[in-house]
Amino acid sequence: MRTLEWNLELQSLQMIDQRLLPAELRLVQCRDYQQVIQAIREMTVRGAPAIGAAAAFGLALAAQESVAQDLPALRSELKLAGAALLAARPTAVNLSWALQRVLQAVHAYVGSPAGLRQLVLHEAQQIADEDVEINRRMALYGAALLDDGDRVIHHCNTGALAAVDWGTALGAIRMAHEQGKKIHVLVDETRPRLQGARLTAWELEQYGIPYEIITDGAAGYHLAGGLVQKVFFGADRVAANGDVANKIGTYMLALAARDNGIPVYAVVPTSTIDLSLAHGGLIPVEQRSEQEVLNISVDGKPVFPAHARARNPAFDITPHRLITAIVSEKGVVFPPFVINLRRIFQENS
Amino acid sequence: MRTLEWNLELQSLQMIDQRLLPAELRLVQCRDYQQVIQAIREMTVRGAPAIGAAAAFGLALAAQESVAQDLPALRSELKLAGAALLAARPTAVNLSWALQRVLQAVHAYVGSPAGLRQLVLHEAQQIADEDVEINRRMALYGAALLDDGDRVIHHCNTGALAAVDWGTALGAIRMAHEQGKKIHVLVDETRPRLQGARLTAWELEQYGIPYEIITDGAAGYHLAGGLVQKVFFGADRVAANGDVANKIGTYMLALAARDNGIPVYAVVPTSTIDLSLAHGGLIPVEQRSEQEVLNISVDGKPVFPAHARARNPAFDITPHRLITAIVSEKGVVFPPFVINLRRIFQENS
Repeated sequence: MRTLEWNLELQSLQMIDQRLLPAELRLVQCRDYQQVIQAIREMTVRGAPAIGAAAAFGLALAAQESVAQDLPALRSELKLAGAALLAARPTAVNLSWALQRVLQAVHAYVGSPAGLRQLVLHEAQQIADEDVEINRRMALYGAALLDDGDRVIHHCNTGALAAVDWGTALGAIRMAHEQGKKIHVLVDETRPRLQGARLTAWELEQYGIPYEIITDGAAGYHLAGGLVQKVFFGADRVAANGDVANKIGTYMLALAARDNGIPVYAVVPTSTIDLSLAHGGLIPVEQRSEQEVLNISVDGKPVFPAHARARNPAFDITPHRLITAIVSEKGVVFPPFVINLRRIFQENS
Repeated sequence: MRTLEWNLELQSLQMIDQRLLPAELRLVQCRDYQQVIQAIREMTVRGAPAIGAAAAFGLALAAQESVAQDLPALRSELKLAGAALLAARPTAVNLSWALQRVLQAVHAYVGSPAGLRQLVLHEAQQIADEDVEINRRMALYGAALLDDGDRVIHHCNTGALAAVDWGTALGAIRMAHEQGKKIHVLVDETRPRLQGARLTAWELEQYGIPYEIITDGAAGYHLAGGLVQKVFFGADRVAANGDVANKIGTYMLALAARDNGIPVYAVVPTSTIDLSLAHGGLIPVEQRSEQEVLNISVDGKPVFPAHARARNPAFDITPHRLITAIVSEKGVVFPPFVINLRRIFQENS
């Protein structure tokens, strides 16, 4: 089952509601592009590659909804829908990458409005299908960095749920497992939304990969104690110099790994690499609702004082100096990233 | 109100049940020393100075319970009770410090069993009263390191609740506030038991000090963003070289502070400094129940897969190279700690 796919019968974007896992595996249907925006914003669908593909299907829905009779009118409606989809979440560059790719095809298209509607859906499906293949290739490169017997700390969720299938960092771990390597994962629970605890743990159970949960603050203890050989995570945007924007907490994890000489791998499709930004300080960091921090309870009792306020940046920037290598579908990129990241775009484009 | 004190009427150790805060402020009575052991183990009372004082009162209860008719019999019962109290939690050295102090007085005592029973209670009360005074002095030294307008990240709970009164790191912040300095605290929620979210936030509300909660993994973002001027925490044990055992997550916090040139202060009474251990690697780190990690829920729904396992080290070791200064009741100690920590014991003993 794919995290998201086009439902031919209902002519809708069907996705796993990731907010309900692991308690419940439920599919939801987005029947118009506003529902896709809402699903991205509320994190019904999340993960950089997944929201890229979802946004592309959002354009397909916008094309279907439109009653525009001529090409210019339809094109300008799609442009507006694209802008609205882009604004759903700011940090993951895959969103703008996927929208731009579809809108470029829209721009270049010559023909009937009906044809354009088909083209947009076709392009979205293309992106989804390619995502699976890209992730599989990335997983192979990443798996080669994993040794039999490795214990790996993994942050957030970067598995099949974060993409159309396979995922990024967790895809590499799954591939190594399928290759017969014994891998044990220490799963950062990943506060505040607990994607590690909810989603990565759930995925690892599906794959039969052994794991234990740790709190985010416990990563340093395990790294310092020689209990971990590798650190793996994904990214929402990588700047031209290799600085990595990823789920909040990644920076501290990478620091602790570096302090103990443990290699740190960021696994990202090239669609996550944004050469237009020179460094990580230029990446917009989404500030999310403080309720995401405050809504947990223990034994049914609230944890925080009634009037407590919270700050909730969803991402942080890990400086490239803390990253051992960036794994993409085009190979493993080592420092100096500012040169070598650009190179993979030139070589294989 | 003190976190713990002797209840003269009931002849019991009365303490705030810290597991119920912030939802409920309830006092519980320990009427025998086994109840004190349970209270320490289950964290009804927690915080290094508080469990030291609680253990001393535990000996007072053991003396009262004992039906020993002669001094040697009572002494050996107290020694056994002391060993049982010591085993309640392994990391905070204050426990053994307080027990040793009382047992030394027991050893030196000459007189009747009734007189010894009085002496043990007196010694426990002494420890509690001195704790308040020591913490007040420590708070003054710590407050001098805080500037008007500072934003401070604080880990775990180190306030009045962690001691008999005032506390350690949070005592310094409270003192600075009472001196009229404007201090804003970013409160690490401190997974898994959330002492920051539950206890520090509650205390800060009592004192009228403005604060915001952050997840532990978000400290790095705020430190890198120039949003914080100081990092303050307490400790459960400090080795002779200045390595600090403190609540899990402290090491990663200190790393992130150091990576951004932000000063890091550990505030500890000298009873927390263990010159018998050369370095932090020799400090025993308590492994607690995985249920402490797994028992949270969101909107009443479980977060973890049903069969998830967890690892739950309660403390980590922050290497001395990451600590700017150690604040004690005898002054502020700067590196080299291996020399200067020993010095404060020699100078003022």
